[in-house]
Amino acid sequence: MAGHVSDAVIRRLPGYYRHLRELEAMGVTSISSQELGERMHLTPSQIRQDINCFGGFGRQGYGYKVTDLKGHIGEILGLDQQHRLIILGAGNIGCAVAQYPTFSREGFKTIALFDTQENKVGRSLGDIPVKHMDDLEEFIRENVVDIAVLALPKRNAQNALERLYQSGVRAIWNFAPIDLAHPEDMLVVNVHLSDSLQQLSYRMAHRNDP
Amino acid sequence: MAGHVSDAVIRRLPGYYRHLRELEAMGVTSISSQELGERMHLTPSQIRQDINCFGGFGRQGYGYKVTDLKGHIGEILGLDQQHRLIILGAGNIGCAVAQYPTFSREGFKTIALFDTQENKVGRSLGDIPVKHMDDLEEFIRENVVDIAVLALPKRNAQNALERLYQSGVRAIWNFAPIDLAHPEDMLVVNVHLSDSLQQLSYRMAHRNDP
Repeated sequence: MAGHVSDAVIRRLPGYYRHLRELEAMGVTSISSQELGERMHLTPSQIRQDINCFGGFGRQGYGYKVTDLKGHIGEILGLDQQHRLIILGAGNIGCAVAQYPTFSREGFKTIALFDTQENKVGRSLGDIPVKHMDDLEEFIRENVVDIAVLALPKRNAQNALERLYQSGVRAIWNFAPIDLAHPEDMLVVNVHLSDSLQQLSYRMAHRNDP
Repeated sequence: MAGHVSDAVIRRLPGYYRHLRELEAMGVTSISSQELGERMHLTPSQIRQDINCFGGFGRQGYGYKVTDLKGHIGEILGLDQQHRLIILGAGNIGCAVAQYPTFSREGFKTIALFDTQENKVGRSLGDIPVKHMDDLEEFIRENVVDIAVLALPKRNAQNALERLYQSGVRAIWNFAPIDLAHPEDMLVVNVHLSDSLQQLSYRMAHRNDP
């Protein structure tokens, strides 16, 4: 990749990947910055700038090769690697993540769920076992875990993060509606569902603004 | 509000609201731009700029009054209004949204879920009834619906959006992993869970970059 990539570009990368995957599925082999821009609500010059920035795939005037560009962006995103996930909390959100249709295709494989509720522990979701939170450390010792998903109540999230860190897990995808304190060598990406709903509500309140 | 507010500021607004709510719950009555910046990983000058931008609450040197500022941002976000939601799809994601702890507190009230599966229709989730998709139009005629949440399979999402539009619904919160075509007078905010997980994977792949 060509040097420093800004946060704004990184934020847009998954969108590029998603659109290119859809185009590929539709049988499109090549696309211009104009057409890609229309799909993504970006200007053609923004598209060209972004694509130059993450790797000099510029083929101005000829269009971009969909499969090549998708593969390249997939690599930048680390999707060419397998990621093994565990999910803490086997409630609605935990189960939704475990069964989310596109994750396994992108190399994100859930290998276990953890919960404390008697009626959940010992069962399985498809072929994914639901284990007791007490067995978390042992499981991590015996299995490679790349990412832990926090899908448990807010009040339990900080403690869970600390147990995960002690066990050597260094990447957290957090759904608990709280900003967690974490060591610098631990990556934490938050999904604040509320933020997204509030953006909708903002736009509803201001839809008639000049 | 003071004139035009940029998309970047709008994206940050829910974060301000969330942090101010937490501070209020902790009993904090006043906070400096320095302290708020540390919590939100923004510079004090960024904080001051943002807060000036959405309404001249600047009280430099004295700190901001937490409750006042939270109330003000809540109004800008439209959280002082009640929003009535229906959720299409009573699977994991639909149920997670219906039971998400903070939504009702922020004025987002789910009044019905819709599904087509026999074993779900006619039941209820807490006090929220699960209705058949065939009854969607009739329900919307008889009830005020402000927002429809799409939590159904990708292949059914576009058709559902069109039925909702025909019935007069003008705001969609979409969890289906697809960018939906929609008329200009319909607001659509997408939650692409995949994008957020890919950002984590990007940061994992590049954690050792210079």
